[in-house]
Amino acid sequence: MNVKLTVEYDGTNYHGFQVQPNANTIQEELEKALARRLNRPVRVIGAGRTDAGVHAAGQVVNFFGAMPIPLDRVPVALNSVLPRDIRIVDAKTVSETFHARFSALRKTYVYTIYRGPYHSVFWRRYSWWVTHNLDIAAMNQAAHGLVGQRDFASFAASGGAAKTSERHLMECLVSEEGPLVKVKFTADGFLYNMVRNLMGTMVDVGMGVLSMGGLAAILAGRDRALAGITAPPQGLCLERVDYELS
Amino acid sequence: MNVKLTVEYDGTNYHGFQVQPNANTIQEELEKALARRLNRPVRVIGAGRTDAGVHAAGQVVNFFGAMPIPLDRVPVALNSVLPRDIRIVDAKTVSETFHARFSALRKTYVYTIYRGPYHSVFWRRYSWWVTHNLDIAAMNQAAHGLVGQRDFASFAASGGAAKTSERHLMECLVSEEGPLVKVKFTADGFLYNMVRNLMGTMVDVGMGVLSMGGLAAILAGRDRALAGITAPPQGLCLERVDYELS
Repeated sequence: MNVKLTVEYDGTNYHGFQVQPNANTIQEELEKALARRLNRPVRVIGAGRTDAGVHAAGQVVNFFGAMPIPLDRVPVALNSVLPRDIRIVDAKTVSETFHARFSALRKTYVYTIYRGPYHSVFWRRYSWWVTHNLDIAAMNQAAHGLVGQRDFASFAASGGAAKTSERHLMECLVSEEGPLVKVKFTADGFLYNMVRNLMGTMVDVGMGVLSMGGLAAILAGRDRALAGITAPPQGLCLERVDYELS
Repeated sequence: MNVKLTVEYDGTNYHGFQVQPNANTIQEELEKALARRLNRPVRVIGAGRTDAGVHAAGQVVNFFGAMPIPLDRVPVALNSVLPRDIRIVDAKTVSETFHARFSALRKTYVYTIYRGPYHSVFWRRYSWWVTHNLDIAAMNQAAHGLVGQRDFASFAASGGAAKTSERHLMECLVSEEGPLVKVKFTADGFLYNMVRNLMGTMVDVGMGVLSMGGLAAILAGRDRALAGITAPPQGLCLERVDYELS
């Protein structure tokens, strides 16, 4: 049996999704909870390897093997042994060929900025504090200019293992909600740190220190050194992962 | 000089507002930050002594003495030495007779419930997780029935030092925002644990286990033993404190 879980987590206290030695990770907690409930070692495959401090509202993982617990009881059974900052939202069986990472058609990330003279205590774990005024119309124009099938090499951190730096950014939308600015990115895949690197550069546009022409030159240059800073991790959330109906 | 500060805090990691031995409190952190910036011991007076785990968006404190820092620089000066879960939002000078607690005309608390099959990781520190269906119209009817000058003895925890258990509840409003239910309480003052005790009983109304007649009988009985449970602290937030213009 191949089981697909949808997972929500607050990444503040974790060293990212992927298991690594001597660091607590989301994957390790999921595997520990599954081992405890299924009485056997379990290895999960995650759709997105979120970094330390990055959150998820709709991370997807899958794992193989017999499932002695009725599927509709799986979220409650796992949540009762998981830390409170990780929740199983949904569990379903999928075809044997389903792979959380390779079967993904597109992923959506949302990056949240908090604007104001101080960083709200309620948003500090879930947003990037920006004190400068931001021109939201200019940021939306930049967002529009990024959409498409493009080479995003200028926004890829070194250390990524991708064969190509071309990605199809299907949607990029900037919206305001009171003191928050949210930027939604949907793509067929993302390079390592791509959303956070795009955000650093989009904030340069919002602050007026980078023009649309400058942004186009950064994209065309295909050189990470040309682009802006990497926005901090706590503003980033893996919102959802979409698959073919399976 | 009498200085009034407006303070926002995430109460999760504190043993409440008021200084107590061998426990970290909001008041202690404020007094440490002030002592560091003013180079003298400072005692602050708080408007509301919020309990462990309770939050504030608009707590008010005042303190007396010389102020060597320009007032408009005070928030930044204090925020730079305060923990990140406590922020000074505003600082102003007030008349010598101003007392954060005794001069308050009314306080507003907001209590937040999260409804759903699991407790959202993003709301777990700021809400009470309720899995039962809640009849919001019935809760609003109950809220309406609570408003007025009343004896709230049935909703006062023992341990309070109040001389009378009469309070004027000016506003009580239930609203829905997606999975959240927010209840706003404005009164000239609150008895110890009054909002959390009212919430426990209002949720009984929302679940249909307590009728409007039952609620009236609890109020009339003036006996804490008659009312529902005390709702957990993390759903509670001191939203604002109002004063005469001063």
